[in-house]
Amino acid sequence: MTRSSSASLASQVVRAAQKVTGSSPVVLHEPSFCGNEWKYLKECLDSTFVSSVGKFVDRFEADLASYTGARYAVAVVNGTAALQVALRVAGVAEGEEVLVPALTFVATASAVVHCGAVPHFVDSEEASLGVDHRSLREYLQTETDMRNGQCFNRRTGRVIRALVPMHTFGHPADIDGLLEVAREFALELVEDAAESLGSTVNGLHTGTFGKLGTLSFNGNKTITTGGGGAILTNDPELAKRAKHLTTTAKLPHRWEYVHDEIGYNYRMPNINAALGCAQLEQLPNLLHQKRRVYERYVAAFRDVPGVRILGDLPGCRSNFWLQTLILDPSVASQRDAILAATNEAGVMTRPVWNLLHQLAPYAGFPRMELPVAESLARRVINLPSSAALGSEAA
Amino acid sequence: MTRSSSASLASQVVRAAQKVTGSSPVVLHEPSFCGNEWKYLKECLDSTFVSSVGKFVDRFEADLASYTGARYAVAVVNGTAALQVALRVAGVAEGEEVLVPALTFVATASAVVHCGAVPHFVDSEEASLGVDHRSLREYLQTETDMRNGQCFNRRTGRVIRALVPMHTFGHPADIDGLLEVAREFALELVEDAAESLGSTVNGLHTGTFGKLGTLSFNGNKTITTGGGGAILTNDPELAKRAKHLTTTAKLPHRWEYVHDEIGYNYRMPNINAALGCAQLEQLPNLLHQKRRVYERYVAAFRDVPGVRILGDLPGCRSNFWLQTLILDPSVASQRDAILAATNEAGVMTRPVWNLLHQLAPYAGFPRMELPVAESLARRVINLPSSAALGSEAA
Repeated sequence: MTRSSSASLASQVVRAAQKVTGSSPVVLHEPSFCGNEWKYLKECLDSTFVSSVGKFVDRFEADLASYTGARYAVAVVNGTAALQVALRVAGVAEGEEVLVPALTFVATASAVVHCGAVPHFVDSEEASLGVDHRSLREYLQTETDMRNGQCFNRRTGRVIRALVPMHTFGHPADIDGLLEVAREFALELVEDAAESLGSTVNGLHTGTFGKLGTLSFNGNKTITTGGGGAILTNDPELAKRAKHLTTTAKLPHRWEYVHDEIGYNYRMPNINAALGCAQLEQLPNLLHQKRRVYERYVAAFRDVPGVRILGDLPGCRSNFWLQTLILDPSVASQRDAILAATNEAGVMTRPVWNLLHQLAPYAGFPRMELPVAESLARRVINLPSSAALGSEAA
Repeated sequence: MTRSSSASLASQVVRAAQKVTGSSPVVLHEPSFCGNEWKYLKECLDSTFVSSVGKFVDRFEADLASYTGARYAVAVVNGTAALQVALRVAGVAEGEEVLVPALTFVATASAVVHCGAVPHFVDSEEASLGVDHRSLREYLQTETDMRNGQCFNRRTGRVIRALVPMHTFGHPADIDGLLEVAREFALELVEDAAESLGSTVNGLHTGTFGKLGTLSFNGNKTITTGGGGAILTNDPELAKRAKHLTTTAKLPHRWEYVHDEIGYNYRMPNINAALGCAQLEQLPNLLHQKRRVYERYVAAFRDVPGVRILGDLPGCRSNFWLQTLILDPSVASQRDAILAATNEAGVMTRPVWNLLHQLAPYAGFPRMELPVAESLARRVINLPSSAALGSEAA
């Protein structure tokens, strides 16, 4: 036995993580501005078009469409707004239910509420951390009725209109299985790809499989616009409606102000889009570095017992947004000791989000049994993940 | 008689406007970046804190509070979000009614709807273009009942909870009269000061008279953050709740994600706040220039019959955000000819917004008779208003 195996698991994790992070304090994730960020911001300021008019929004939307392979991208103020509007244009009406994972950032569910709809929490799978299509199918078979081509929740009497898988920390959910369930139960599939820009399944970009998908460019994401998000879709009518709704639903006119729906002020400002254009140019390089961070963690944790670093599933390619350490059930009780030891050592880590059905404001919403999500919530820890940790110098 | 008085009114307006704008094409309003905009943006990018963490958001909030005299300012993504959250923390509940002018930008009413409440349209006054407290009082006396200290709409049975005056184009509404009506009918007064940063009444800043007030820093406003807004209040509890709700309602914790309400992702990104800090430093100078633009228009239009340039009312000081030409009722029929002639001559003008009760999505909401708003809607034209038109060189 080596010395490390007899040390506490927490101290072994600190040592392994520091093989990647070094001994100076590191945060969980910081952005990297190595390209034209400067140049485009200056160009934007010099043009005076920093706000709703300006070429960078159009360019960012075109660049995003081109990068993801979606036919259309609509840039908005953030990922929450993107999901709210995507659900609305997907046809989710007030009082209808939307299936979302319990294991996700709170925005997935609050976007549903902001849409006037009801989140309905579903379980996740150990392999991808995404929604488990197997347990979901069994649950829907037992708990719902199909009437007039719509899926009704037998307990609440409400229509279940949509399914929102989320690609956790950049790892693609089992999208093929989920698409099948969605078809079977007449659910609109809207992908919350807030965390998975750059992640693919069989070479196709996450966020492009459902009716619509949504991205986030918050400051903690792989690329950032300060604050921002986007809606992806291949449907020209949905894209047009999303753009219209996010820009106060104003009809084009030389000077009149006619709004034909109750819209939102969710447009991405030009200055944020300028930053986004520069960041998107850097994305391939950032993805390369983030994959290297993953490889370094795999090597560093090879000899630490009872833990694994989450990697790619067959056919999938993660962006490795946040590196993910998963504890075996047998060592789950040591999670808090590991969190404390790493953070005290200057290695910023955090557990996965508190499960949404356990938060007071979401506790009353419908849900299935959530054994896997509840187990994962006790065993998942994110490690420092900045792309810079994977640069050649690192 | 001079030659000009026999020419068409439209051509007289073009000639008068061009005395201020010159003969090159000019837009309605463009921002002016003459200070530390570039320096602060660079500082922000160099720090890598472009998003939700960073010193510029705190500083912008402190600077706004200091400038307006409000005890607290909470920076958010835009003015619509600011008003939605201000109404929610003011106590507006789902299904309650909120009095808003019919003569305003659509966001005033859509913020009410996004809050789950019902806009109720009220009339304006000729003098300030703001809500008319006299006709409002008469209307409320006739149409409402006070029960348990609450104001009930007799027709709909709903509580009327709040009154949202808007300071049109920067001209303060008659806030003292409106505050009296609000007290009399137990209405929360929330000021939509989106257009009136820098405008005062008796030396006090608009947006600081009600329970809360809201600002906008959209690209067309006096100062801009690209996109942005703020909530003003003197109440520490309301300020705290507004900050909490606009930042996903997350409780502070070293690593846990506990959210105790259904919140919003409405935080202003640090990079937009950086721009705001630099712009706010320029505000006194911009206000000086914009007042000079007003004076130049007054001089230029002195001999044009049937029109007037909207100026300050007693005790009020406008920021002159958008310069406002008001046609006498006798020449209202020439509005469209004036709009066409000016825009064709490269002098960008526009009419006031279409009245909200005349837009299809808002047509079903309650309203009083709106004779003044309907008259003004036919007679108000905004003229090019950029601060640069009032610089010494202009």
